[in-house]
Amino acid sequence: MSANEAPLEQDLAVLIETQPDGLAAYLEGVHPADLAKWARNASDGDVTIVFELLDSEQRIELFHFAEDKVSARLVALLDVDGLVEVIESLGADEAVDLLVHLEDDIAEEVLRRVDLERARGLRALQTYDSDTAGGLMTTDFATVESGCRVGDAIKELRQEDERTIGDETGIFIVDEHEVPIGWVSDRDLVTTPIHTPVEDVMAGIPVTVRPTDDQEDVAIAVSRYGLQVLPVVDVQGALVGVVSAEDAGGVYEEEAEEDIRRLVGTSTEEQTHLPVMVRVRQRLPLQVLTVLGGIVTANILRLAMPESKAGDPAAFNDILRYVPIVIGLAGNVGIQASTILVRAFATGEVTPDRELRVLSSEVLVGFLMGLLCGGTTAVVATLIETDIDGAVAFGSAVGIAIAIAITWSSLLGSSIPMICRRLKFDPAIVAGPFMITLSDISGTAIYMLSAHLILSSAG
Amino acid sequence: MSANEAPLEQDLAVLIETQPDGLAAYLEGVHPADLAKWARNASDGDVTIVFELLDSEQRIELFHFAEDKVSARLVALLDVDGLVEVIESLGADEAVDLLVHLEDDIAEEVLRRVDLERARGLRALQTYDSDTAGGLMTTDFATVESGCRVGDAIKELRQEDERTIGDETGIFIVDEHEVPIGWVSDRDLVTTPIHTPVEDVMAGIPVTVRPTDDQEDVAIAVSRYGLQVLPVVDVQGALVGVVSAEDAGGVYEEEAEEDIRRLVGTSTEEQTHLPVMVRVRQRLPLQVLTVLGGIVTANILRLAMPESKAGDPAAFNDILRYVPIVIGLAGNVGIQASTILVRAFATGEVTPDRELRVLSSEVLVGFLMGLLCGGTTAVVATLIETDIDGAVAFGSAVGIAIAIAITWSSLLGSSIPMICRRLKFDPAIVAGPFMITLSDISGTAIYMLSAHLILSSAG
Repeated sequence: MSANEAPLEQDLAVLIETQPDGLAAYLEGVHPADLAKWARNASDGDVTIVFELLDSEQRIELFHFAEDKVSARLVALLDVDGLVEVIESLGADEAVDLLVHLEDDIAEEVLRRVDLERARGLRALQTYDSDTAGGLMTTDFATVESGCRVGDAIKELRQEDERTIGDETGIFIVDEHEVPIGWVSDRDLVTTPIHTPVEDVMAGIPVTVRPTDDQEDVAIAVSRYGLQVLPVVDVQGALVGVVSAEDAGGVYEEEAEEDIRRLVGTSTEEQTHLPVMVRVRQRLPLQVLTVLGGIVTANILRLAMPESKAGDPAAFNDILRYVPIVIGLAGNVGIQASTILVRAFATGEVTPDRELRVLSSEVLVGFLMGLLCGGTTAVVATLIETDIDGAVAFGSAVGIAIAIAITWSSLLGSSIPMICRRLKFDPAIVAGPFMITLSDISGTAIYMLSAHLILSSAG
Repeated sequence: MSANEAPLEQDLAVLIETQPDGLAAYLEGVHPADLAKWARNASDGDVTIVFELLDSEQRIELFHFAEDKVSARLVALLDVDGLVEVIESLGADEAVDLLVHLEDDIAEEVLRRVDLERARGLRALQTYDSDTAGGLMTTDFATVESGCRVGDAIKELRQEDERTIGDETGIFIVDEHEVPIGWVSDRDLVTTPIHTPVEDVMAGIPVTVRPTDDQEDVAIAVSRYGLQVLPVVDVQGALVGVVSAEDAGGVYEEEAEEDIRRLVGTSTEEQTHLPVMVRVRQRLPLQVLTVLGGIVTANILRLAMPESKAGDPAAFNDILRYVPIVIGLAGNVGIQASTILVRAFATGEVTPDRELRVLSSEVLVGFLMGLLCGGTTAVVATLIETDIDGAVAFGSAVGIAIAIAITWSSLLGSSIPMICRRLKFDPAIVAGPFMITLSDISGTAIYMLSAHLILSSAG
């Protein structure tokens, strides 16, 4: 692939730093999609410098390609005039997504100043949840009535097509109640003689959705029928919006990412660019759940234990009862680190020259999580293991051993995918059950060894 | 969504059974995408009956929408004449995917009989791996040389456009060496006056790929730049193929599904339609890994144990050393069942009326896996725990307790998403760490209780 963002990042850093005069000329040759990607990890100051140098067409294209988070930062750089221009030039679905980022009174002022019909369409779109068909659809679509000819459809599109950005293709054929009865692709409009009745070339409408339908239904419908656009209809069946294949495809990516996030307990995207503390905060909830579950398990196991006399010293049994915490945490940490790295390799987020930096920061994340989880376990174990003589020493030993084992697992989880890449294996094969099993076994061994050493040197 | 496959399935079952005469008329009203979906789970006999009744255009559309597995079954129903017609009518990328399913000599005969130029294109496509840009691209694309006008591009498309099926849109502008320098969308061809030079309306080429590039690079490029088609070029930069956005989008779905499959240890798609034994076979490798890892861990823990005399009866310690197996298996089984059901709910695979059947078959799957994993553990434990007096009783107790705990986890993993759906919660929130923690705790408790009961009643 000939697109590579590392040079862009370096070029922009140098130009912003040393020769702002050359920057404007350089930006003319940069694709807005690349600029949008760069802006994700760039500082506010750099983004402002670059944005100020773009002309209004470049700005609109940047908004078209920018992610939600980037758009939210960019709208803050525009005055009301600039906002009106952007809102009028984007697709209606994208315009509505931008309005969300504005203060209510500013959004209201912008809406008052855009074309009346467009404002009405945008207000209607604003009422739908973002994860419904209504939230995905745009009101920018073209229709002709049945009985027309191909030439009429072309004429209609030429009148409508004032905006340059928009993913909608083809034209819907509607009956007198605005109910869609067919659709003609742009390609058919190009290749069919203009006097042909549209009914002769139109494809049927295999499926429609309602604005309140879930976005996943939209994605399924578009994918199953291979649609370029999906019609959204109201209760009477009249066409009120269309969802493009591109927007519907985004749903699948989003839902799949959601599934993975749920299974791994964290988003896997752009993790390696986040500050260490943010990474710890994002991954901690899963570990807290595991620690709590492990503490409950440790106590269930105590209930099942042969009775010991109060005041007995900590025994092998007692250390063993905390193994479930280690197994759970080691598995989590190993699978998080390896899944994040495998995906980061696949998307090109981690280039070979960033490997060492990413490795050390991931191990630091693991170490901090180990400290927090080990510390929590130490405190709780000290408080509840009152039957054990020397509960403080026992709790501390367990906690420290957990911290050591978790740090080890994060080293394992981040280094093995890197080693696989070096050896030209597909790193993906390790980022699953294999990693969990390896973390479990080695984590448990390290935990037992550490706990024994600490307890025996303390005793 | 107005598409629902349950009625189609029922209608076809009734018509095939009772009135084959009405079937042909009924099939005319069925969308080929729905028919392709139906064929995934239909018997060979039913598929044959339906396929025989389709005319050649319907058959070609069915191939266009059919998944690989269905296509493989369908090509077997065609003679060489039929094959030639299908291969000539499909997009080149789809035609090549079909040729794979044919015996070598039949494929050769088909290729000899299709148009010479097309055969050459197909042979070239056959050389690429299916997970590369070359494997995704089609050689069906249109170009005009720079310096042409919009009208020339339209004329070119009218000549090329003999096939009806194909997702490629727009036309590439190439220089004298066939190097792409721009692209004009079908929409721009429709809306631009025909005398306009193509250079005035063409978009630039932000990125190209080589045929050997990984399919993930293709998906990333198409998604990042919002492309309708991605040009594939050879070493000299000349255009050799194009990948449509639709085909590139499939890569994301595939890779995401792959990630989830790896994390869950099994494919999650259409699981509830598979025979129980197939489901067991698919999910077993993950469990085997867990059992092996758990047995290793049990032995590491034994090494760390305070020395006991040979001939000691099985102690609490010994049962405890097998908890890692239970925790691993319970987590696996719970997460597999819940992830599969959550996805099956989301895609409409499991309708409320199928719930009970799906629940009982999932629990049966869990029970069988529990038997196999418990049995394996029982045998291994009996063989290696030679220090324990009554190793057979000990091994059996551990094995039976594991089987009980795993069956419980599969009941938990399948029933909780169903309960969530009944209570109108999003079932997705439970199919993750929460399910693992719950399975871990309750599985461990059930394991300890069962093992103690069995051991004490045996002793």
